[in-house]
Amino acid sequence: MKFNIALLAGDGIGPEVIDQAVKVSDAVAEKFGHEITWKPALTGAAAIDAVGEPYPDETHDICVASDAVLFGAIGHPRFDNDPSAKVRPEQGLLKMRKKLGLFANVRPTFTFPSLLDKSPLKKERIEGTDLVFLRELTGGIYFGEKGRRDDRETAYDNCVYTREEVQRLAKKGFELAMTRSKKLCCVDKANVLETSRLWRETVQAMEKDYPEVEVSYEFVDAVAMRLVQWPNSYDVLITENLFGDILTDEASVISGSMGLMPSASLGSNIGLFEPIHGSYPQAAGKNIANPMATVLSAAMMFENFGLADEGKAIRDVVNKALNEGIVTEDLSDGGKAYGTNEVGDWLAKNI
Amino acid sequence: MKFNIALLAGDGIGPEVIDQAVKVSDAVAEKFGHEITWKPALTGAAAIDAVGEPYPDETHDICVASDAVLFGAIGHPRFDNDPSAKVRPEQGLLKMRKKLGLFANVRPTFTFPSLLDKSPLKKERIEGTDLVFLRELTGGIYFGEKGRRDDRETAYDNCVYTREEVQRLAKKGFELAMTRSKKLCCVDKANVLETSRLWRETVQAMEKDYPEVEVSYEFVDAVAMRLVQWPNSYDVLITENLFGDILTDEASVISGSMGLMPSASLGSNIGLFEPIHGSYPQAAGKNIANPMATVLSAAMMFENFGLADEGKAIRDVVNKALNEGIVTEDLSDGGKAYGTNEVGDWLAKNI
Ligand SMILES: CC(C)[C@H](C(=O)O)[C@@H](O)C(=O)O
Ligand SMILES: CC(C)[C@H](C(=O)O)[C@@H](O)C(=O)O
Repeated sequence: MKFNIALLAGDGIGPEVIDQAVKVSDAVAEKFGHEITWKPALTGAAAIDAVGEPYPDETHDICVASDAVLFGAIGHPRFDNDPSAKVRPEQGLLKMRKKLGLFANVRPTFTFPSLLDKSPLKKERIEGTDLVFLRELTGGIYFGEKGRRDDRETAYDNCVYTREEVQRLAKKGFELAMTRSKKLCCVDKANVLETSRLWRETVQAMEKDYPEVEVSYEFVDAVAMRLVQWPNSYDVLITENLFGDILTDEASVISGSMGLMPSASLGSNIGLFEPIHGSYPQAAGKNIANPMATVLSAAMMFENFGLADEGKAIRDVVNKALNEGIVTEDLSDGGKAYGTNEVGDWLAKNI
Repeated sequence: MKFNIALLAGDGIGPEVIDQAVKVSDAVAEKFGHEITWKPALTGAAAIDAVGEPYPDETHDICVASDAVLFGAIGHPRFDNDPSAKVRPEQGLLKMRKKLGLFANVRPTFTFPSLLDKSPLKKERIEGTDLVFLRELTGGIYFGEKGRRDDRETAYDNCVYTREEVQRLAKKGFELAMTRSKKLCCVDKANVLETSRLWRETVQAMEKDYPEVEVSYEFVDAVAMRLVQWPNSYDVLITENLFGDILTDEASVISGSMGLMPSASLGSNIGLFEPIHGSYPQAAGKNIANPMATVLSAAMMFENFGLADEGKAIRDVVNKALNEGIVTEDLSDGGKAYGTNEVGDWLAKNI
């Protein structure tokens, strides 16, 4: 097959980890007889610096003309402590999600047996953890009307959901649950929020279409607790945008493998694949960032094209590298630490 | 001194744990020469059943005529899975917070050396953890306009904050930080939300009034991660209502002492003191609930009256009970488990 992949490296360590995912994807393409054309495009602070816009129109045009988007990371500290900044890298991310119709963010959290000791949690609490969050990504308080009034003394953010937005996300959740353990948890705050009550009633009404799926409803605060207590009691979780932002980050540290966690954002015919870690500006340019999360995001990309073997080839080579200690300093535990580039080369060569 | 204390036992295990806090408080009062008059009043599902209202006017009148409120827990599962329920116990809680002006919820998380092993986290991660959340409690998305439109197909919840609401909460945060390690973390989502940008700019402007306090600004998703990774790196954290709801629950499991964590809600001249655990209906009436969080909430009540020695007497006796194994089954670890009542009696006797 032939693919065009938009390549949005972004900020901080983004370019370095993206490079490795390209190498590994090219190796997979060669092995399986595919052809990938990479289409680099600007985003984030890098795009603001170059053209004054975090998600320029040319970048969007390149994305929509591609079969998928491989994304690095965005964000730069110089914007974070300036509440009055007019243009922010994050706006680019939100605009991109919206314009590409990426309403479902898929974030798996799983354990690597060789890394169990890295977790802040006790081994017996995390063993076997293998859960997936489906976070709604183009609605809720992120996209509702926001602003100031009363001479800027009052600020507001509106959280809005339609039944249809809940349905399409929940449908993906039910379908995913059917391919796994048939357990679905709907996370909300229905004891307080009207949007959550809409979520809950919508999911309840869909239960009859998936009689095999066992659905539980839990409040977001309770999930924030149980995720730390018994992460391996969860399987598929669906939730709205902001709760998903908080809980997926919380979940990512549980396995101790945060630097290895990939994600996919789906919705339209173009999927976006990115590591869950951020732009980590302190590490930028030092050839120390762990590229594996981005490489595994490429695996999700192949899987989303229906190419399960290609995805598996990548997962296998990552496991092999972990077992053989071909890792960056975050995982080297006093042993030999490889550079970002060297890990990427090794993975590509061993595909 | 003479005190009137409104006694709102509420639902589930509320009445049982409240009884123990009364015993212990009475013992303290006797020892230190105070006189407490308890004023029981209805709240929660119990109040809905009795008078159709979760926070009846008589209850409010009793609260405002008192010097403090001691609160058990509210909530009943029969309301949780009915998104269309017209009256809910939680509404009573929110109404009470608002009408009593309890804008600052103080939730400490600390470790008990004898209980470190109870934590889902590794010992080295939690040792020395001693942090306090100040959660804004009467604003934000909990109290903004909410409802449905488009034939109930669209739901909305409005999050609103005024500068003054942020200031009064942040002031308490700075003041608390001054009595502790002078480190304050402002938790927000200023890269996305306008209300968060108001929070951040307001706190930034207050920094000059507390030159000794070192303030950090962190995004809520990052805090959800670091709380699990390095809880002992935090001291005082301030945050808006919904983020506080999620993060304080997350933090509460970290120390492994969730059944021991008290809280205070302050703002007007009447404070409210309650355990952070919920109504735990499965345990109701079984004499197995751990009363220590409620007893420690009574300690916070005395401390808030300026009676530090009285508070310390309670903390000391709780520590003594923990060291001597006078504990309910949640902490007994295969050893002898005492009943709720027996633990309360022992604490009162040993004051
Ligand atoms: C950078 C930020 C806007 C973004 C979000 O909140 O969605 C990030 O935290 C994420 O989870 O992808
Ligand atoms: C019961 C519920 C309304 C309440 C809240 O969300 O504030 C509870 O979770 C709490 O934290 O006190």
